[in-house]
Amino acid sequence: MNYIKDFEWEEGMSVSDAVEKLGDLGLQASNLCKARDVILKMKRNSANIFLSFTSNMVSSGMRGLFAQAVRLGLPSVVVTTAGAVEEDIMKSLGEKFSLGSFDPDDIELHEQGVNRVGNIMIENESYAEFEDFMKESLHEVYEKRKNWAVSELLKELGSKVEDENSILRQAYEKDIPVFCPGITDGSIGFQLHLFQQKKEDFSVNVVEDFGNILLSTSMDKKKGVVALGGGISKHHAILSTMLSGGAEYAVYVTTSQKTSGSISGATTDEAKSWGKIKDDSNAVTVTGDASVVFPLIISSVFEKLEEEGLIKDG
Amino acid sequence: MNYIKDFEWEEGMSVSDAVEKLGDLGLQASNLCKARDVILKMKRNSANIFLSFTSNMVSSGMRGLFAQAVRLGLPSVVVTTAGAVEEDIMKSLGEKFSLGSFDPDDIELHEQGVNRVGNIMIENESYAEFEDFMKESLHEVYEKRKNWAVSELLKELGSKVEDENSILRQAYEKDIPVFCPGITDGSIGFQLHLFQQKKEDFSVNVVEDFGNILLSTSMDKKKGVVALGGGISKHHAILSTMLSGGAEYAVYVTTSQKTSGSISGATTDEAKSWGKIKDDSNAVTVTGDASVVFPLIISSVFEKLEEEGLIKDG
Amino acid sequence: MNYIKDFEWEEGMSVSDAVEKLGDLGLQASNLCKARDVILKMKRNSANIFLSFTSNMVSSGMRGLFAQAVRLGLPSVVVTTAGAVEEDIMKSLGEKFSLGSFDPDDIELHEQGVNRVGNIMIENESYAEFEDFMKESLHEVYEKRKNWAVSELLKELGSKVEDENSILRQAYEKDIPVFCPGITDGSIGFQLHLFQQKKEDFSVNVVEDFGNILLSTSMDKKKGVVALGGGISKHHAILSTMLSGGAEYAVYVTTSQKTSGSISGATTDEAKSWGKIKDDSNAVTVTGDASVVFPLIISSVFEKLEEEGLIKDG
Amino acid sequence: MNYIKDFEWEEGMSVSDAVEKLGDLGLQASNLCKARDVILKMKRNSANIFLSFTSNMVSSGMRGLFAQAVRLGLPSVVVTTAGAVEEDIMKSLGEKFSLGSFDPDDIELHEQGVNRVGNIMIENESYAEFEDFMKESLHEVYEKRKNWAVSELLKELGSKVEDENSILRQAYEKDIPVFCPGITDGSIGFQLHLFQQKKEDFSVNVVEDFGNILLSTSMDKKKGVVALGGGISKHHAILSTMLSGGAEYAVYVTTSQKTSGSISGATTDEAKSWGKIKDDSNAVTVTGDASVVFPLIISSVFEKLEEEGLIKDG
Repeated sequence: MNYIKDFEWEEGMSVSDAVEKLGDLGLQASNLCKARDVILKMKRNSANIFLSFTSNMVSSGMRGLFAQAVRLGLPSVVVTTAGAVEEDIMKSLGEKFSLGSFDPDDIELHEQGVNRVGNIMIENESYAEFEDFMKESLHEVYEKRKNWAVSELLKELGSKVEDENSILRQAYEKDIPVFCPGITDGSIGFQLHLFQQKKEDFSVNVVEDFGNILLSTSMDKKKGVVALGGGISKHHAILSTMLSGGAEYAVYVTTSQKTSGSISGATTDEAKSWGKIKDDSNAVTVTGDASVVFPLIISSVFEKLEEEGLIKDG
Repeated sequence: MNYIKDFEWEEGMSVSDAVEKLGDLGLQASNLCKARDVILKMKRNSANIFLSFTSNMVSSGMRGLFAQAVRLGLPSVVVTTAGAVEEDIMKSLGEKFSLGSFDPDDIELHEQGVNRVGNIMIENESYAEFEDFMKESLHEVYEKRKNWAVSELLKELGSKVEDENSILRQAYEKDIPVFCPGITDGSIGFQLHLFQQKKEDFSVNVVEDFGNILLSTSMDKKKGVVALGGGISKHHAILSTMLSGGAEYAVYVTTSQKTSGSISGATTDEAKSWGKIKDDSNAVTVTGDASVVFPLIISSVFEKLEEEGLIKDG
Repeated sequence: MNYIKDFEWEEGMSVSDAVEKLGDLGLQASNLCKARDVILKMKRNSANIFLSFTSNMVSSGMRGLFAQAVRLGLPSVVVTTAGAVEEDIMKSLGEKFSLGSFDPDDIELHEQGVNRVGNIMIENESYAEFEDFMKESLHEVYEKRKNWAVSELLKELGSKVEDENSILRQAYEKDIPVFCPGITDGSIGFQLHLFQQKKEDFSVNVVEDFGNILLSTSMDKKKGVVALGGGISKHHAILSTMLSGGAEYAVYVTTSQKTSGSISGATTDEAKSWGKIKDDSNAVTVTGDASVVFPLIISSVFEKLEEEGLIKDG
Repeated sequence: MNYIKDFEWEEGMSVSDAVEKLGDLGLQASNLCKARDVILKMKRNSANIFLSFTSNMVSSGMRGLFAQAVRLGLPSVVVTTAGAVEEDIMKSLGEKFSLGSFDPDDIELHEQGVNRVGNIMIENESYAEFEDFMKESLHEVYEKRKNWAVSELLKELGSKVEDENSILRQAYEKDIPVFCPGITDGSIGFQLHLFQQKKEDFSVNVVEDFGNILLSTSMDKKKGVVALGGGISKHHAILSTMLSGGAEYAVYVTTSQKTSGSISGATTDEAKSWGKIKDDSNAVTVTGDASVVFPLIISSVFEKLEEEGLIKDG
């Protein structure tokens, strides 16, 4: 029997100790600590980890944690969206996003050439930089080959990005595939469209990439899903592990609720219906904003894994 | 000045009268009625309407309304997800989904071969039927041509579906394009993958389809977005109208909240930053479950449009 | 087995027929229809109905429905908050609330003397009218008696309100008690405080009123709870039926979620733990905005009950 | 201009440093850090802090933080609910609450005599212990005086509780008033009712206590509200500071959303309409579960205040 324990602040308390104490607190705090434990289990049992996240998280400073997670060897597979790819590249090109309000004067922002993602502001200029990068890169890419599976294209783009804090760059260096099933749904889609109009034999193959994500793991390998946020990246991570025999472990972090019947709000209860998760100790849904929840979880995960020698920097 | 008015039930009250009364109620009820008004404006001003929805809504009985909306000429463009395409076809093949609970015993469901979407249950058998349909259809499709833009493929599938309540069928008959930027993210993606392994020269072109959605309207045409739920279908509808010069009208229905900074929770405030929406009377976000909100809105829209002779059945 | 059925609009469809169709739709739509069915069961089985709601609902036009529900004999007991009492009285005094936005310039509103509840605007003037009413009424009340249980005080105020659309007035006329366990938490609390400073022997007894709500029903009487929104009014309705042996039926409508562990988000699953609700057919939680959900439910309830002769107007 | 900065884990990172980094992350993470800053401002500017919280937070291990906050002199005033008082006392009597699931078999729990608050389990036995404590205490209380304002009664109960981790005990020792405007809404209400039936001249005065909370600060004193969760405790803290001239600072932490128009979801935008908060730097709403958000905020607050010598333990 786990008993609720009163939380008290202690001077100089580490974030990992705080996560430990949250585990005895009840409510979502205990789910947060449990998520840490499930990810530790994944790693200790050498599971292939499918990490999925949405573009707003890359717009936010969580990009640093994702790049670090890839560098430290946490995920085997990354699944994300077109916007995430774009914003990772923009930041790699030196573009800065600024912090504003969730309730600004949006008409004024428009006049200033500012695009808003929640309380994060992206200037038109950043998109222009990205477009220039894509125009140049696509020509080089095309010289190499006409037909590209999406993950191969993203690997190639990663090789061109010169920033150690880039998710694409780290994935390139560590040879971790980045899947993006909705690749056309963003500025990158428009660039691909413009390029294809010039070079009609250039093609981007999403169907082949579905084969690639299935081959990225195997039926007899243990698998875990860490899905931050919802939408297509979450669904695709779940779907591809399902078709590969099902995940043994699952951690979802979401602000959506299961009462809507949406994929964003779907909980890990559902994961039990995949047939591999036998008890509640291997799956947990944390209801909350990933920007708060994930830095805590993953900092504690890294702390523990380093202690155990399961990650090594460099 | 609009004043709040007390709502009273009247015997035999029509759903359209109820929506009218909700408009004077305050809270989300008034947003619901306003959404009705914005959609009426779209139609009265001959805007091209981009209607987007998610797969769980097609799993639910809202499929009937979407097919009816296409039949009655409401949207010019439909944007949706892989799951929506699959479930529309399953139902067209006579498969029935049953109504259960949001909190069932998921392990038991798994043993019974039942898949859960919120409180809607889909049997494995229904997926098998869908797979058979796809296997057969893809062969015929391939005989016609090797390379398909996604919307052309969906039109072809619509021609093969023999059910007047099918969204794909109605879209085929009315020549309304159905876009699905994340086409591989579902069972259909797996079928395409299997088929491509047999026929290596078969290809599905998502990049070309991005061009198609941009060409489906024009810069000088008025545009409206009706986005139900979130994720890639919502984002794609917004993105493609933006790249076509921006929408004048927008209605979003979502259970997500803007505080997460996600696309699912993004509100029509953001739409104002596109620069075309000049005042609040042309855009509204209704916070609520689309399964409740949309049938009310659209029933009242149809009622009014029919009175005005702006839709005609048959 | 209940199967999902496609919803189609039919010309002139009544709101009650629409609710019926929502029942076959899945997602929250089916919960909405089920809530209608559970309330019908309560009435058909002559249960004592405890109806609770929050003040923002009275600020909205739902006040009309609550007054109508009392007039038609639906609830045996009403539980609500201080704000609800105040706003019911303000409207009875002819004050009008206006409809605005959820995102106004709040500093400007302050300068204009306008108070905001969501998208509903209440002028300072309305509070001033309420205060005058209270000052006069409390003197008359005091002349009658020095010590008042809260529900007795509210009944007395109801007798002074001359508006057939008032909840307090209808409750007075039909002799339905209105309980308000947090009576001091509002402008009315301030008026009571000012009056008690002048008349030290004037007292308002909340403890006695807890006895009154327990006596308002009995252990062997069937009981149902209809709780709209959360907070103290919901908790008090649940608590008092629990202490009276438990409710057989429960309908909750809330935008809050159970993941927070709050009373506002608590679901009717919990109600099963009271031990009287034996199966799922007697309890349902509808996740959604009461301003949309409740008018639909209750309109259909009234329609059916009138057909069955279980309510009679006048 | 504040720029988004990538977050990276650093070995041994303190929780206070983590909060600092969250401030540059965007999304709710930056609101969390801002909430820390606003509370620091309150203390540095010697504002009277009104701290409100709900009962589920006391059921959780946050009780420890609330008791510690009182001990360290953070709040001048505490506002809470009946359940919070009860659960603080139960724990003081040695009762333990256990950690379970948000989705248990509630019928089974009922049979085992277990009451559920989210994922926190409270045994019937704990209520029995509380009742015994109350029965005995009320007799002693009554011997002292017949008429009690609620906060005086709670102070007296605090004097009888022998547990340094008790909120009531610390409030008694530090002479910090605890207000509970809905005192009858819980098991304690039932005990008061039973006692009043035996001793008819025993009375609990809520109206007098409204005067007490108004007198607990003054018009010319700076004031801040820290409201965790929603409902009557949040509203009462806001209301009483408003009637005392308005708060200069406000931090709300809530899982509810403003789209419902409820007090639980009301944001600090509203606070600006009080007229004292002139800019956004003094008010913030953090959307999230208080069990995760508050331990982080307050740990960092304590860390900073100790460095600055603004709190002193013991």
